[in-house]
Amino acid sequence: MDERIRKQLDFILEIDQEKNIFRQTHLSGHGRSENDAEHAWHMAIMAYLLKEYANEEIDISRVMIMCLIHDVVEIDAGDTYAYDEEALKDQREREEKAKERIFSLLPEDQKKDLIALFDEFEAYETAEAKFAHALDNFQPLLLNHSNDGGDWKDHDVSASQVYQRQNKTRYGSEKLFEITDMILKKHIENGDLRNE
Amino acid sequence: MDERIRKQLDFILEIDQEKNIFRQTHLSGHGRSENDAEHAWHMAIMAYLLKEYANEEIDISRVMIMCLIHDVVEIDAGDTYAYDEEALKDQREREEKAKERIFSLLPEDQKKDLIALFDEFEAYETAEAKFAHALDNFQPLLLNHSNDGGDWKDHDVSASQVYQRQNKTRYGSEKLFEITDMILKKHIENGDLRNE
Repeated sequence: MDERIRKQLDFILEIDQEKNIFRQTHLSGHGRSENDAEHAWHMAIMAYLLKEYANEEIDISRVMIMCLIHDVVEIDAGDTYAYDEEALKDQREREEKAKERIFSLLPEDQKKDLIALFDEFEAYETAEAKFAHALDNFQPLLLNHSNDGGDWKDHDVSASQVYQRQNKTRYGSEKLFEITDMILKKHIENGDLRNE
Repeated sequence: MDERIRKQLDFILEIDQEKNIFRQTHLSGHGRSENDAEHAWHMAIMAYLLKEYANEEIDISRVMIMCLIHDVVEIDAGDTYAYDEEALKDQREREEKAKERIFSLLPEDQKKDLIALFDEFEAYETAEAKFAHALDNFQPLLLNHSNDGGDWKDHDVSASQVYQRQNKTRYGSEKLFEITDMILKKHIENGDLRNE
C-alpha cells in the first residue's frame, strides 16, 4: 500500500473513536446520550436542509465538511459541556494539542486543508463558520426541546447562561435565532429553564 | 412557526431515530455495533478525503449528502445485512414504503430533492452514486479489517459472498477496489474468511 493512502486510512480509522465521545445531549424520546459522530452527522444534514436560512451566501460543501470534522479534537480533549465554566478554561489548549496530533496522521496537503477548515470554524468569522456554529447550537437545542429541556434540568442551567451561548446563533442565521428564542421562551414559561 | 420550517424541523427530528438503527459492523477496537448515523458520518468524511480515487470526476457535495441520507429509510425498514439472502428479498419493497413516508415530512421541493438523491444512489449509475457505493462497501470493510474480520466470522460468511459485493467497488474506484482486494486476500490467508 502506498504511503499516501496508508496515511489517509490511518486517519479514517483514528476518527472512528469519535463515536465513543459522549455529549451531554440526549437523543429524542428521552434516549441515551448522543455521541460526537452522530451530532456531526445530524448537523451536516441540517446544514443542507436549512441553508436557505443562512444570513449570507454560503458554500454548502465547505459548511458540511466543517460540521463533519469540527469535533474530531474531542477524541483526545474530551467533550467540554457548553456551560461547564471550569472545563472551558483550558479547552482551547487541550484542543490545540489534539488538533496537531490527529490531523498529522494525514498527508501534509490534507492536514493543512482540514486544519484550515477547523481553524476557520473556531475563528467564527466567515459566513460558513457562522452558519456551522448556528447549527452547532441549534442541533442540541432541538433534541433538548423534544425532551422537555431535560438536559438543562440535569445541569441546573439558567436562561441567561443558555442565551449567552444561543444569542450567537443570530450571527449565522437570524431565522434560526428567531426559532431558538421562541423555543427558549416556551421552556422558561414551563419552568424547564431556570429564570433567575 | 411557519409551515415550511415546521416541516423541515419535523423531518430533522424524525431522522434522529437513525442513531438507534444498529448494523452488523462493530466499531474498531472490538467495540459495540455501529449505528446508521455513525456509518453515514464516517462515509461522508471518507468521500471528502478519498475523492482523488474516484474513477470519474465527481461533485463532492452531492456525494456527501448522498452518503449522509442513504440509510434514512432504515428507520422504518431496519438494517438489512449485506449477506442475509432472506431479508434481501423484500428489502426494496420495505425501503420504498419508508422512503415515501419519511421524505414526505419535508416541504415538497426538498422531498423531491432528497428522493432524487436517494434514487440516484440506489440506481448505481452516476459517478457520484458509484463512488458513494464504493464507500458504503469500504467503510465497514475497514472497520472489520481492524477487528480481524470478526463480523465475517460471526456470520460465517464466505470469501465468494464478500467478493460478490465488494467487486462492485471498482465501478466507483479502481484504487479502493485494489486495497479491498489486498485486505480480503490477507483475511483469507489468515483464515478469518472462509474460502470454500
